[in-house]
Amino acid sequence: MTQGITYTNCVGEALDSTLSNIDHNKTFVVADENTARLVVTRLGSNALAEAPVITISAGEESKNLKTLAHVWTQLSDLGATRNSIIVNVGGGMVTDLGGFAAATFKRGIRFINCPTSLLAAVDASVGGKTGIDFNGLKNEIGAFTMPQQTIISSCFIDTLPQPEIKAGYAEMLKHALLHSHDRFTQLLKTDFNNPFNTHAFLKMIEQSVAIKLHYVDSDPLEAGTRRALNLGHTVAHAFESLALKRGKAIRHGYAVIWGLITETYLSHKLFGFPSADLYALAQFAIEHYGAFHITCDDYETLISFMTHDKKSQNGEINCVLLSQCGSPHYDAAITTDLMEAAFDVYRDLMHI
Amino acid sequence: MTQGITYTNCVGEALDSTLSNIDHNKTFVVADENTARLVVTRLGSNALAEAPVITISAGEESKNLKTLAHVWTQLSDLGATRNSIIVNVGGGMVTDLGGFAAATFKRGIRFINCPTSLLAAVDASVGGKTGIDFNGLKNEIGAFTMPQQTIISSCFIDTLPQPEIKAGYAEMLKHALLHSHDRFTQLLKTDFNNPFNTHAFLKMIEQSVAIKLHYVDSDPLEAGTRRALNLGHTVAHAFESLALKRGKAIRHGYAVIWGLITETYLSHKLFGFPSADLYALAQFAIEHYGAFHITCDDYETLISFMTHDKKSQNGEINCVLLSQCGSPHYDAAITTDLMEAAFDVYRDLMHI
Repeated sequence: MTQGITYTNCVGEALDSTLSNIDHNKTFVVADENTARLVVTRLGSNALAEAPVITISAGEESKNLKTLAHVWTQLSDLGATRNSIIVNVGGGMVTDLGGFAAATFKRGIRFINCPTSLLAAVDASVGGKTGIDFNGLKNEIGAFTMPQQTIISSCFIDTLPQPEIKAGYAEMLKHALLHSHDRFTQLLKTDFNNPFNTHAFLKMIEQSVAIKLHYVDSDPLEAGTRRALNLGHTVAHAFESLALKRGKAIRHGYAVIWGLITETYLSHKLFGFPSADLYALAQFAIEHYGAFHITCDDYETLISFMTHDKKSQNGEINCVLLSQCGSPHYDAAITTDLMEAAFDVYRDLMHI
Repeated sequence: MTQGITYTNCVGEALDSTLSNIDHNKTFVVADENTARLVVTRLGSNALAEAPVITISAGEESKNLKTLAHVWTQLSDLGATRNSIIVNVGGGMVTDLGGFAAATFKRGIRFINCPTSLLAAVDASVGGKTGIDFNGLKNEIGAFTMPQQTIISSCFIDTLPQPEIKAGYAEMLKHALLHSHDRFTQLLKTDFNNPFNTHAFLKMIEQSVAIKLHYVDSDPLEAGTRRALNLGHTVAHAFESLALKRGKAIRHGYAVIWGLITETYLSHKLFGFPSADLYALAQFAIEHYGAFHITCDDYETLISFMTHDKKSQNGEINCVLLSQCGSPHYDAAITTDLMEAAFDVYRDLMHI
């Protein structure tokens, strides 16, 4: 379960080189309707110039069985065989769904991911989690299947609007928290208002992905240590579900930073995580992300979401917590009272 | 990718023992509408007495996406978690579909197979091939995922009608051909009109499954040597497709023995497989299986099915052939002329 990752400024060259090293008969591109229009020209890949593009609807709400069946049908009708390759070009929705289509077509064909968002580059497109939403639940159906290669290119990252960068950056902060205090404080120095140096930022992405892969390699099927990567996500998913219930979705990355604040407070309370680091994170969030507004009246709903989470065992609220940067504790069970206290502190820190 | 197999006369005890050795929270049974009615009492398992039974429609035509989505929905609604287990009780359709549902629910939960047909016992329920039919193609969507355990019980085999026994027995003949001349001639001694000795027959099944597992273990993802298990199946699938086109399906196992006859002729022609063994197999088929009727007018259709087969590379007809029992040759490309000659010989041998 190892996977190759290429960091490049020239996605087309990297794709051509990767494809020329893999024995295969046909190549198919999976992209959403927004990406598909531009994909061939932007990629600049000779190998893909003639490849059929399987286009799917954009947006998380299209990450469903209907879209999956469409990709399967197209592959079947266009004559894909076990020796064919899929190249997924897009954000996490495309790499998740396209990866799962590949994992299950004729019992599994190979695929390459070309993430076009920062969130997909540092998270969804690496580590082998593929899947679709089903029965109202995120990633309810899927598989652990490694891409043949993930090609992370600054040519996509460079053009992203600031909120897209920030969304991915929250997962990078999570990785830094799981790595070391040095890495964490280094990431807090970023000012999104100053343009990034492309080369330096690609290096930061590489370091961040390396942290994720360290946890993935130690436990590819998420039976133990890999669960550290859920840091911040118990609360983040509850915030996202509440936002959906209110009829106004929030970006996953933004939910992650707000989740990290709440869960580092729990870490402080239960495992002595340094409060100075918690305050620094909250300050960074206020400055660059703003806050997700909740009141006491939302607590019951949030807690209900958390007890129904995939990570919950027997209706308890489970979180990954930290005693300090780089030292995760697994399956901490959180009482309702303590979670409500954590929401109080979150609101206090975010001035809401 | 190894799997445990239990051979038993007491399926209930074996199930209870298996389940007690696996840490899990809930157990779900998947069975078809025919099996589901009887399943709990017949199994005699204490552990499954209270387990929810997810019932699916019977028959190969139900091995589709709609049925799969029904199983996924039931699992989701009934609160299955990553720590739950599915027990598939039924023929190959149930173990294929139930296994694939397990392989993909929450990115994979564990499953146990309890085959109730001989065909499922010696083939579908062991080796980790799971899947559904899609877009008019058999097993077009699926995964290689090993069951936690397969429990093969004579209590089901004992009650099967003779055509069901014969269908499974054809796959046992295939395994014998892949193993040794001794095993092959031993299997040809069976007379289906005399009742089987349960204990001896369970032993024969165990020996047959061991041959399959030898090939599976050497190549779980079917990149090379495992393809030997496709012996007879290029022609068998074409016969099945022709039968479907005529509106009258034939049993897979029967198609396999007719396929084996055609392909052992090709083996004789290209690799010197002994003609005496070919004649002995044809004689056994005439006596116990009868013939599948084809005429010259069917050749074009049959060849068209074979060039569109999953095993076909670039539109060629590909078969696994034998130079003698136990010595497979992979990816033999068969010309149209030679295949037509093989059909002529098949008709001659089968007196049609």
